[in-house]
Amino acid sequence: MLLQRLTVCSKMPKQTKVCCSFKRFLMQGWSHGMPFAHRSELRQAKRIVVKLGSAVVTRGDECGLALGRLASIVEQVAMLQNQGREMMIVTSGAVAFGKQRLRHEILLSQSVRQALHTGHNQLNDMSLPVLEARACAAAGQSGLMALYEAMFTQYSTCTAQVLVTNLDFHDDQKRQNLNSTLQELLRMNIVPIINTNDAVVPPPEPNSDLQGVISIKDNDSLAARLAVEMKADLLIALSDVEGESCSLGSAGRHLSVIANGTHPKVTGHVITDIVEGKKVGTFFSEIKPAGPSVEQQTEMARNSGRTLASLHPDQRSEIICQLAELLTERKDEILAANKMDVELAVTAEHMAPAMLKRLTLSPAKLNSLAIGLRQIAVAAQDSVGRVLRRTRVAHNLELEQISVPIGVLLVIFEARPDCLPQVAALAIASGNALLLKGGKEAANTNHILHELTQTALSKHGVADAVQLVSTREEVEDLCRLDKLIDLIIPRGSSQLVRDIQHVAKGIPVLGHSEGICHVYVDVDASVDKVLKIVRDSKCDYPAACNAMETLLIHRDLLRTSVFDQIIDTLRTERVKIHAGPRFASYLTFSPSEAQSLRTEYGDLACCVEVVDSMQEAVDHIHKYGSSHTDVIITENENTAEQFLQQVDSACVFWNASSRFADGYRFGLGAEVGISTARIHARGPVGLEGLLTTKWVLRGEGHTAADFSEQGTMKYLHENLPIGPPLASHRDSN
Amino acid sequence: MLLQRLTVCSKMPKQTKVCCSFKRFLMQGWSHGMPFAHRSELRQAKRIVVKLGSAVVTRGDECGLALGRLASIVEQVAMLQNQGREMMIVTSGAVAFGKQRLRHEILLSQSVRQALHTGHNQLNDMSLPVLEARACAAAGQSGLMALYEAMFTQYSTCTAQVLVTNLDFHDDQKRQNLNSTLQELLRMNIVPIINTNDAVVPPPEPNSDLQGVISIKDNDSLAARLAVEMKADLLIALSDVEGESCSLGSAGRHLSVIANGTHPKVTGHVITDIVEGKKVGTFFSEIKPAGPSVEQQTEMARNSGRTLASLHPDQRSEIICQLAELLTERKDEILAANKMDVELAVTAEHMAPAMLKRLTLSPAKLNSLAIGLRQIAVAAQDSVGRVLRRTRVAHNLELEQISVPIGVLLVIFEARPDCLPQVAALAIASGNALLLKGGKEAANTNHILHELTQTALSKHGVADAVQLVSTREEVEDLCRLDKLIDLIIPRGSSQLVRDIQHVAKGIPVLGHSEGICHVYVDVDASVDKVLKIVRDSKCDYPAACNAMETLLIHRDLLRTSVFDQIIDTLRTERVKIHAGPRFASYLTFSPSEAQSLRTEYGDLACCVEVVDSMQEAVDHIHKYGSSHTDVIITENENTAEQFLQQVDSACVFWNASSRFADGYRFGLGAEVGISTARIHARGPVGLEGLLTTKWVLRGEGHTAADFSEQGTMKYLHENLPIGPPLASHRDSN
Repeated sequence: MLLQRLTVCSKMPKQTKVCCSFKRFLMQGWSHGMPFAHRSELRQAKRIVVKLGSAVVTRGDECGLALGRLASIVEQVAMLQNQGREMMIVTSGAVAFGKQRLRHEILLSQSVRQALHTGHNQLNDMSLPVLEARACAAAGQSGLMALYEAMFTQYSTCTAQVLVTNLDFHDDQKRQNLNSTLQELLRMNIVPIINTNDAVVPPPEPNSDLQGVISIKDNDSLAARLAVEMKADLLIALSDVEGESCSLGSAGRHLSVIANGTHPKVTGHVITDIVEGKKVGTFFSEIKPAGPSVEQQTEMARNSGRTLASLHPDQRSEIICQLAELLTERKDEILAANKMDVELAVTAEHMAPAMLKRLTLSPAKLNSLAIGLRQIAVAAQDSVGRVLRRTRVAHNLELEQISVPIGVLLVIFEARPDCLPQVAALAIASGNALLLKGGKEAANTNHILHELTQTALSKHGVADAVQLVSTREEVEDLCRLDKLIDLIIPRGSSQLVRDIQHVAKGIPVLGHSEGICHVYVDVDASVDKVLKIVRDSKCDYPAACNAMETLLIHRDLLRTSVFDQIIDTLRTERVKIHAGPRFASYLTFSPSEAQSLRTEYGDLACCVEVVDSMQEAVDHIHKYGSSHTDVIITENENTAEQFLQQVDSACVFWNASSRFADGYRFGLGAEVGISTARIHARGPVGLEGLLTTKWVLRGEGHTAADFSEQGTMKYLHENLPIGPPLASHRDSN
Repeated sequence: MLLQRLTVCSKMPKQTKVCCSFKRFLMQGWSHGMPFAHRSELRQAKRIVVKLGSAVVTRGDECGLALGRLASIVEQVAMLQNQGREMMIVTSGAVAFGKQRLRHEILLSQSVRQALHTGHNQLNDMSLPVLEARACAAAGQSGLMALYEAMFTQYSTCTAQVLVTNLDFHDDQKRQNLNSTLQELLRMNIVPIINTNDAVVPPPEPNSDLQGVISIKDNDSLAARLAVEMKADLLIALSDVEGESCSLGSAGRHLSVIANGTHPKVTGHVITDIVEGKKVGTFFSEIKPAGPSVEQQTEMARNSGRTLASLHPDQRSEIICQLAELLTERKDEILAANKMDVELAVTAEHMAPAMLKRLTLSPAKLNSLAIGLRQIAVAAQDSVGRVLRRTRVAHNLELEQISVPIGVLLVIFEARPDCLPQVAALAIASGNALLLKGGKEAANTNHILHELTQTALSKHGVADAVQLVSTREEVEDLCRLDKLIDLIIPRGSSQLVRDIQHVAKGIPVLGHSEGICHVYVDVDASVDKVLKIVRDSKCDYPAACNAMETLLIHRDLLRTSVFDQIIDTLRTERVKIHAGPRFASYLTFSPSEAQSLRTEYGDLACCVEVVDSMQEAVDHIHKYGSSHTDVIITENENTAEQFLQQVDSACVFWNASSRFADGYRFGLGAEVGISTARIHARGPVGLEGLLTTKWVLRGEGHTAADFSEQGTMKYLHENLPIGPPLASHRDSN
């Protein structure tokens, strides 16, 4: 077993008072082993001390114990214990528990009946003399332990009570006794529950708060001493005290868990989450992790990105061309790194052949990658700083709206390393800072590709604008950095996009999660076009998001030769047909009924349904579609225009295959992706999806007051031409 | 006490197996009182039955009781009991509890030591004979009750055990006995915990699952009978069984609580949330609430909105003009309704004068409102259906990108009823469906204004496109409808915007929450311009988001007359100066130091700080600003252009007051708001912020395959002119 030294301090809503002594003990030498440097290693922790602050154990409203929280902690500790870990609990709460108990006793000795009827809240109004504090602790201790015992018994877990004072650590003999007692308990799968022995510690200061008797500081220091003494791998400190910020451990950086004191979200799985390596609370480690944190990387990227954005378009193009050249020049290194990944994948991971193919680079792939990059370099000439609008607001007061980068992009891609230079080039072209999070299967390839990207960027001193995020970082954690990241672009399967849209509630995600595309065959359709378009829409690349999933056929075409030819075509192409309910009802022998009219088959399969009219087709599309791409086939211009106007999808086509919904086919140049969002960018997205705008106003000392009723100026709001050179850029886009 | 009849079935992640008998009992007559029709009335519930399904009481992984969940439920029930409500619990779980206990006994009788060492998980692998099921229940009952007792004791709440069978309800005498026992317990503030008396019910079917002994159905039916018998106001059923969907109650509509079985979020405050009227679980009531649900309203709005979007621009303008006319024609009715609101506000709510002023309408206000509406009607001519881009993709294959509405907007506004026709007009102009959520202070005024809007809309058969959401709906609940609403626009204080941005994680919010605007006075600034611009930026309207909050001064200006004049100007205008740390260090007697360089004073106060250079000003702005509006004052064009280029804010001005950051002043026509988001719309937003785009492709049977290597076609990607009439529209925008 590795002996590690670590603290995770989970600062709950209200924050922790203090603990210098705690910190001091952390700084003391831990005698053995290699400490963890990263959260992901916490899963390996075997011996864990869980320290519960009194604010965690007791309720914020002073109504005694926070039973739900306590029970949930017991549940988690028992679960970890059952996983074979050695768990120890350092608990507070005896005073609060005893206080409540003694109050109750006093009231009962007055009038049981009356007390029951006035209700519990009034109990709180009665105060007990401060001097009884230690008595409270003594009275509470047994009850608290009984409760722990009762709760752990539910999980067949034995507990043992251990009362100690700080003095026990100063006496070597006592310390050894304590040590061997605890070792023995752990060996027997028993959870020791440790608390300060208040009955024997000096009385509290006069005027001190009741809660202060077993001070948080004491229990923190106790937990820290214990963790050192018992060579624990991990110390989890849960606290929740108002006022000061959590300064446990050596770092000043905090990652607080946002939730109020009684919010069960915090304690419901906080301990197991920490052990699973999730970003809960603040993580302190004696050793620094290699390299900057992802937050630092983001900051570096943003700063360097601002310089990137201020470069001349030619300079950004140069960087991209340089990267393209490096892909060719250094292809041996790239292929060698890639070979390592591929071999690892084959031997260790038994990767599926399709995935292995995506992972594998070849000189040909690198070549076409370089060609693509040079196209992006051209597009880069016309992205940042384009004037989109010019207005003469008033005499000598001119307004321009210009395109600027969005800021910091996070691109998440799977085992497809060629994504890296591509998205890097798109980010550079649009002057955005970029965080790249690649699959760990391609770690070596991504590493060298990122190095080359930085080499290219350093040509103009902006190497930090593109950062490769460690494979250890969880995607879910990255998606929570909503103050740092402006846009997330997932590149990969629609499942990846869906997953990311699901977790990234605070940051916009550019992408499409669903493509339920319809082709509607109108009564006035030309047979030739129908057969061509239906075949192409379904069969050209069935797994694509712009492939047809549902074929809507006008009722009057049933039992005509057009209908027979459509079905024949689909059969010839081995497309499995699922019948919609209406279609099925028309047939004597129907194919299998569609499970749902909202299915994305993503394969050689589609749903066929019958509609009465173009209007019904539109209604069907609105009801079951995903607003991606929908097609009408008809020779009737009027019907077509109605369809094009009414269908509320990102792409609506007349007599053309759904497969044209694609940035390259649309002629957008560099393609960022296809978006099914309704704001910002919709449908196939070119570089402009990575841009936003900024308003630049140039005046001569103009003030709003100049335009007031008493003022001397008048608004002109005259539209100005955008200017020939930039306008021509725009046209050539 | 009103006797009410209600059920809230909180369907947890895994879903409830369900309960025909439960439903049947709900359908039976409840003998007294008026049932609740809306969740907000649930706070009044006095007598509450809480029914815990066995899946709630036990863990998903079969490791016995879900202690955390159970304790949390006890906590909530105790809290509600302490509020003076009468709580009853119908519990499952005895079988699971007993099963675990018996298993443990068997193992212990084998080898204690071995059992302790192999750990708990193996216990689960041993199966007990099915026939012992009733024994399990009997063995579990006492333990379960002891646990409830122990937990409720923490809150000084007494419990009582009541075991019943369904037969007890069929015998009148028995039913009366049960009734009077329970009444007496409730009278004494005791929480009755009720369970089926399994020891006396018939044995289970052979092969039936252990859990089935006390069937969920039985307990559901028990809870329903009990609720009827005890005339409970509310029945809260918590369940969590995999497979079938929750069909408790009379409705088919479900609002499930998304969380997995062990997710404490669900149970942590589910009961108290329900009682507080929050949208948790599915709500069933005997009486239908007046009017459609907000989900139905959204659906109606979306459908009607699609028709609105398909109207001719002239028709949308007509509707808006009609609304403007109605504001004048029906002003007596409007003012009468408004008078009711104002009187109510004065007498009942003691509203602050400023707010009262905003609430109050006048003929003059209505007039200028009508004028504003007619301007929007003009803007409406040029919004939906604008061609933004035309491309010849290939011969006879033409692509257009056109502007279309976003979909369904939710506009939330405070006690300012004139917002209603304004935002309605903006939505109509942009062809969007609209949900309006106004402050309840203006309920009467909003009601009549909405009626007039619908009257105007009905001119073209789209009355439903604008919906007024009931004042009972909580803003937080509306902000969760991310599948239904496409964009939220808060109109009101920046606090409102902040609150809404905070709760609306899933839906984009158009608005600005912060305006920390800087004015940087460069060393080459003209004194006249400095004094004019600084005064205007700070004093023209200090509460506005575009007012100056921080004044950055070049170091070389210190101790010059320019500096003295700036300070004099601010003093004359009674602006309170807060010194930044560097500024303070230069002064012998400094004004109060700024608490933070990131403060939005929103008042006649600002921070003054010193910087060494334009570059340092830019860095300061990036570090402390909110990317809203920042200004440079200088005569040096080079410095100015550097600043304009580098500062990464929505608006960057040179020698002009920050107060120009405004849609009207920018000449955008109808103003939607100011956005500090980085995607979609940034800075002052005109109607175009309410639009997205759609791609329309017109072909002649083109397929992707035609363009493959074997194909016959080539991509042209030729940019086409947008066409004179629409282009002129664009310029005149």
